Amino acid sequence: MNSLSHSVEILERTPHTLRALLSGLSAFWIYGDYGPGTWSPAQVVGHLIVCERDDWIPRLRRILEHGESVPFDPFPHDATIAGAGTPMAELLDEFERSRVASLRVLRAMNLSRSDLDRTGTHPAFGRVTASQLLATWAAHDLHHLRQIALAMAWQYRDAVGPWHEYLNTLRR
Amino acid sequence: MNSLSHSVEILERTPHTLRALLSGLSAFWIYGDYGPGTWSPAQVVGHLIVCERDDWIPRLRRILEHGESVPFDPFPHDATIAGAGTPMAELLDEFERSRVASLRVLRAMNLSRSDLDRTGTHPAFGRVTASQLLATWAAHDLHHLRQIALAMAWQYRDAVGPWHEYLNTLRR
Repeated sequence: MNSLSHSVEILERTPHTLRALLSGLSAFWIYGDYGPGTWSPAQVVGHLIVCERDDWIPRLRRILEHGESVPFDPFPHDATIAGAGTPMAELLDEFERSRVASLRVLRAMNLSRSDLDRTGTHPAFGRVTASQLLATWAAHDLHHLRQIALAMAWQYRDAVGPWHEYLNTLRR
Repeated sequence: MNSLSHSVEILERTPHTLRALLSGLSAFWIYGDYGPGTWSPAQVVGHLIVCERDDWIPRLRRILEHGESVPFDPFPHDATIAGAGTPMAELLDEFERSRVASLRVLRAMNLSRSDLDRTGTHPAFGRVTASQLLATWAAHDLHHLRQIALAMAWQYRDAVGPWHEYLNTLRR
């Protein structure tokens, strides 16, 4: 199995994972962050939606169409569409729709081994491969799943009492 | 909504979250850890199974039956039933069965506000409340969900190339 199929394994599961974790949860869990300047689970899902639209597939297309000659458009790390009270059900539906559409485009590209080795130009750190972009897409899902679980656990940082000491998730 | 129902919201979702994340994944994602002495996703699920059997409900019963007079039995932090190749499907089924059984017991206890304030004795740090134990059970789920996502992301620490710099999950 190559790295493309490994990446797709993660990418196709994330909408279902987020739905299992977040669907129907009370506001207590959905809109709490883990400190000033951090995101709530709703804001993280809103960020994943923006990335689906502006980051992964557009950058992959850029590599295939222009190689290193046209750098990727800059993408703000803190982009999210979710405001304070965006309903989670809407966010989960929109993310799933966006991801399904992205994977449909990816499959239609029918990338070969040599396509995966093609290179583009990242605006900050220069040459990257299509394969690295795809791996980052999957790792980014897992990174933000961790962030959601952190924001949720954080709501219980006092409720756990002395067990706080045993849960390094709650020590920051 | 009180803290008991908040905790139950998490507890009842975790088997489904883990199934969505881990079911059908290739061995590449399931049996890799994130460094010496750390756990793979399979080992984490094996740990959650042991906790279901020996930790949460037994300790809650101890509080309700003996209060502070009989300390909890010590529970090893590193207990897991999963060996190198335990099939994930078996682990997920066993965890779901165990969790469903635990929640059935919890609901049958029909805990009142004053039950949640009852206290027991933790072998390491002394007095704890039933409410703190329940909150820790939920936070522990989220803590280990984060750990699973870390172990998975870790398998891509090289594959992401220069994006490594942007994913603090991969910096340890």
